[in-house]
Amino acid sequence: MGLNEYLLGLNNLETIVRAPGHFKYTKHTVAAHSFRVASIAQVLGDIEELNGETIDWKSLYEKSLNHDYTERFIGDIKTPVKYANKELRGMLQTVEEKMTDEFINLEIPDEFQDIFRRRLADGKDNSLEGEILAVSDKIDLLYESFEEIVKGNPEQAFKEMFIEGVKTIKKHQHCASVRYFFAEIFPELLKPDFYGKAEFLMALNRAIDEC
Amino acid sequence: MGLNEYLLGLNNLETIVRAPGHFKYTKHTVAAHSFRVASIAQVLGDIEELNGETIDWKSLYEKSLNHDYTERFIGDIKTPVKYANKELRGMLQTVEEKMTDEFINLEIPDEFQDIFRRRLADGKDNSLEGEILAVSDKIDLLYESFEEIVKGNPEQAFKEMFIEGVKTIKKHQHCASVRYFFAEIFPELLKPDFYGKAEFLMALNRAIDEC
Amino acid sequence: MGLNEYLLGLNNLETIVRAPGHFKYTKHTVAAHSFRVASIAQVLGDIEELNGETIDWKSLYEKSLNHDYTERFIGDIKTPVKYANKELRGMLQTVEEKMTDEFINLEIPDEFQDIFRRRLADGKDNSLEGEILAVSDKIDLLYESFEEIVKGNPEQAFKEMFIEGVKTIKKHQHCASVRYFFAEIFPELLKPDFYGKAEFLMALNRAIDEC
Amino acid sequence: MGLNEYLLGLNNLETIVRAPGHFKYTKHTVAAHSFRVASIAQVLGDIEELNGETIDWKSLYEKSLNHDYTERFIGDIKTPVKYANKELRGMLQTVEEKMTDEFINLEIPDEFQDIFRRRLADGKDNSLEGEILAVSDKIDLLYESFEEIVKGNPEQAFKEMFIEGVKTIKKHQHCASVRYFFAEIFPELLKPDFYGKAEFLMALNRAIDEC
Amino acid sequence: MGLNEYLLGLNNLETIVRAPGHFKYTKHTVAAHSFRVASIAQVLGDIEELNGETIDWKSLYEKSLNHDYTERFIGDIKTPVKYANKELRGMLQTVEEKMTDEFINLEIPDEFQDIFRRRLADGKDNSLEGEILAVSDKIDLLYESFEEIVKGNPEQAFKEMFIEGVKTIKKHQHCASVRYFFAEIFPELLKPDFYGKAEFLMALNRAIDEC
Amino acid sequence: MGLNEYLLGLNNLETIVRAPGHFKYTKHTVAAHSFRVASIAQVLGDIEELNGETIDWKSLYEKSLNHDYTERFIGDIKTPVKYANKELRGMLQTVEEKMTDEFINLEIPDEFQDIFRRRLADGKDNSLEGEILAVSDKIDLLYESFEEIVKGNPEQAFKEMFIEGVKTIKKHQHCASVRYFFAEIFPELLKPDFYGKAEFLMALNRAIDEC
Repeated sequence: MGLNEYLLGLNNLETIVRAPGHFKYTKHTVAAHSFRVASIAQVLGDIEELNGETIDWKSLYEKSLNHDYTERFIGDIKTPVKYANKELRGMLQTVEEKMTDEFINLEIPDEFQDIFRRRLADGKDNSLEGEILAVSDKIDLLYESFEEIVKGNPEQAFKEMFIEGVKTIKKHQHCASVRYFFAEIFPELLKPDFYGKAEFLMALNRAIDEC
Repeated sequence: MGLNEYLLGLNNLETIVRAPGHFKYTKHTVAAHSFRVASIAQVLGDIEELNGETIDWKSLYEKSLNHDYTERFIGDIKTPVKYANKELRGMLQTVEEKMTDEFINLEIPDEFQDIFRRRLADGKDNSLEGEILAVSDKIDLLYESFEEIVKGNPEQAFKEMFIEGVKTIKKHQHCASVRYFFAEIFPELLKPDFYGKAEFLMALNRAIDEC
Repeated sequence: MGLNEYLLGLNNLETIVRAPGHFKYTKHTVAAHSFRVASIAQVLGDIEELNGETIDWKSLYEKSLNHDYTERFIGDIKTPVKYANKELRGMLQTVEEKMTDEFINLEIPDEFQDIFRRRLADGKDNSLEGEILAVSDKIDLLYESFEEIVKGNPEQAFKEMFIEGVKTIKKHQHCASVRYFFAEIFPELLKPDFYGKAEFLMALNRAIDEC
Repeated sequence: MGLNEYLLGLNNLETIVRAPGHFKYTKHTVAAHSFRVASIAQVLGDIEELNGETIDWKSLYEKSLNHDYTERFIGDIKTPVKYANKELRGMLQTVEEKMTDEFINLEIPDEFQDIFRRRLADGKDNSLEGEILAVSDKIDLLYESFEEIVKGNPEQAFKEMFIEGVKTIKKHQHCASVRYFFAEIFPELLKPDFYGKAEFLMALNRAIDEC
Repeated sequence: MGLNEYLLGLNNLETIVRAPGHFKYTKHTVAAHSFRVASIAQVLGDIEELNGETIDWKSLYEKSLNHDYTERFIGDIKTPVKYANKELRGMLQTVEEKMTDEFINLEIPDEFQDIFRRRLADGKDNSLEGEILAVSDKIDLLYESFEEIVKGNPEQAFKEMFIEGVKTIKKHQHCASVRYFFAEIFPELLKPDFYGKAEFLMALNRAIDEC
Repeated sequence: MGLNEYLLGLNNLETIVRAPGHFKYTKHTVAAHSFRVASIAQVLGDIEELNGETIDWKSLYEKSLNHDYTERFIGDIKTPVKYANKELRGMLQTVEEKMTDEFINLEIPDEFQDIFRRRLADGKDNSLEGEILAVSDKIDLLYESFEEIVKGNPEQAFKEMFIEGVKTIKKHQHCASVRYFFAEIFPELLKPDFYGKAEFLMALNRAIDEC
């Protein structure tokens, strides 16, 4: 009981894998993903600041670090997309939220409950920090899925995820950090050569043009 | 598309782990669990036959072999019990069933759809075969969780799961195979010595008496 | 002692790997392989029935589910072919059979011994169910080795295994399920593109033509 | 080159293990450890705030999230203590720092270099945030090593690490969060029973008394 | 073809596990076992020399380093003893030897064949070096199985293996290195405390007395 | 204490990975690498003898078997080259040597200390045996990195390591075993086809020409 239960949950996140059954080359845990998303978010925050924006750093770090803690309850089952329509995703979201409520009510001491309710809520709102979280979450997915693509994972899903991710990030083009990402970082990511690269780039560019 | 998609799903089940984040000594996959449940079910079927019952073997094998195929859609998230009440479990069940429908409609050729609808439906009905499936599923959980207990996994959940499992099996006492299990197999399973065994047995016996 | 020993063996099969030292991308356990072979066999059984054949389902499930249980004794050492001629394979077969006898005599209660002798015997006989088992065992090997080929495993053995497997399945062309497999499922399996695919397909087709 | 190299490094941290060759039950990666330390630090920050302290949240998150990024260069070789005296640790520290400099000079664009120099420097200074980082780093080590102890890892090093960790945390007793930790969280952590617990607690209490 | 095939086999030995399905805490590969046996043998050789014996070092290293290379052909299936009598072990031995012959004839260039025939033959002869190999092989098994025992592996087989190993080593009591081992090293190995230690020591001492 | 501590260290080497965070397809342990280097060294020794050279076999085996034992102290951190200049490598070398001294003084009984000082010292001297060790160490790295290259690991480092390794081996061209390696074994190693092979071979040949 108490915060000890919360701390033990942190250890559990090291054994919960992302998109179980899909990544074949490197397994990713929710703990490591959360670390990377927070690390990406802070770099995007830097870029925004260098471009004159004001960042609420407490909010940015808090949102990004905690954005998947609730996956300790039902695991990462929303990443693989096939066969799940919007309604089903909504239902899974609801289950996760109700278990989170239950967890906070049962385990977290009263004086911390409001803090945990804020922290474990969905952070992808319309604030700049919420946008950076959404973008960082997708950038990490780009790196994870690109590794599978380069190494020859035949599952079509990774190419779709990658292109889908690029399109979602594009929607945040009005952010200086997103423009910097596409201008300076993305081309480096795409550099390695691999079998089928030409077709992949064509599909990618087609999708970008459609945005 | 087509049955190829179904066959690829069989491979996926080899990478979906049971109760992710909980088993610390041996990770169990859904594929291996399904193999064991079907193997246990056939032995319970033998015992029933030796006791004069008639077994519908096609149904028994079909129910037990396929009972967790649908976990390829959202993974094994119903095994760990904490924080999930009956309503939430019901919602997860619904999501899984709707994704199963979607999968059958999209991938399975027409002439096989009825067969797949029967096979991927919940098999734990009131038939003798349905009861044997329910019992076999729990017996496998007993073996899995007992290994964790013997080796000193401090998570209380395994002792609770074990005792809960024993109580569920007890409800099927009217089956000859269940009586045989408790008389001939269960004592062998409990034989190994481990630290804390006396307390564990006391808790176990108390729970059995309450049935 | 007793059936408990048999049930513990089921757990062991989850840790016995197929063709140890060969699969580089996904390790396959004997337990998961058995699950898949039984699952494939039931689909082939469906196809036969839809084509008017009568299936002895009890026999089909029993043969396919249990066909590798005896690998718990000496592991899976017959899959990799190099350096082993027919005589040596025969000797390994004999060792496995004698250990199986010993196991049944020592561990299995008298009233179950006949059942276990039937179940743990080689099921690949001339019955339709025996043929379906032989085909299903090879189909699973096709899926396992194709994954290695697609992902670029340089070991020539996988291509040889794949082609060898196709040739073995072809020998059962008189079965409706085999004809369906080659017409409807196999082309889907071969769809993913990979480096060296053209040469591989040429070698495959040459081998098929020779049948 | 550029920030892409930094982002790839985040992935590498998911494959760098903590104290390689020592943890036997759960392997911990530097990425997951960093996630947990930042998560612990934020809870200690909450406690301080509830006790009237002012927290520089940007600094607290930044220090804790990035405190082990530089382990991508030479791995985690400072955790296991045996055979390394203070001078040798100092030399390893120097190597790590020089490689960090080299990395920043070679890879990080000019406009970000100052930020990265601050972020990848040692954050365990005398500020409240620096103290919380030092405490959080040790609390995570307590959880990691206690798991090994409970499960019966015979390596004496874990008990020594645990006791050493407790003593280091005690030095920060003047922090409200440390007092809260020992009063409310630590007793919960110690709750599970295990073989040899009495002796362990005696050694622990003796060490605490000596502080 | 040629020595390249031999070198690739060395890599394979890194993926062949010892006693597959039995070790639960640490998996041991044949490559690592061979490294340890050769390392143990050289220390026993030192002790013999310090006691005035003459060691043929080339033979000692050669025997110990290569003693399990042939397991690349059928894996490590002779370690687990259950259900295999002397005749069956003999048959497995024969299979391994015939595959070794085949390998040398097919792959090894003529001028090296005699060397490889000597190296891949069974080295446990009556020479001092042959005895040291036999003892080193068992000492490594003691360390491997003691780890399982200390950590609470309930499989009785490890205690039997350990005691069996001690008895085999005792048979070489006339070697100074064996007497040194029991006087100076073995007591250190046995030092860690674990649940059930008293009973284990009693069984061990009883077995030693019977020698 | 005593030799037991040395023997436990052998087990640790089975859990220390080579170049942590770099090998993506097959993880290599220091124990297995040491086994392979000693096995390669003995074959090179054979070739030298067949060419009329005299080999000090005790020295050759001893050097090759023990050449990485000291990595148990700080792991394998010298393999990945980036960001570490000659000075930093020298410092790491010094740390390792001082920890080795400390280990020998603390753990190894007096009468063995001189032997261990010789064995755990750097064996890559100008003797023929020292040269063979240097070559064998690189040959193993060629096999390890070539596997990554063939399977499509996009990290440029493996191609650089491979080419660097070939150049280092070339420096020992005056050894008959090195000339044999390039004439008879290397072409076999390079045989498998992979995407990007033509460019790789061009870079390799350019580098060889420059030697």
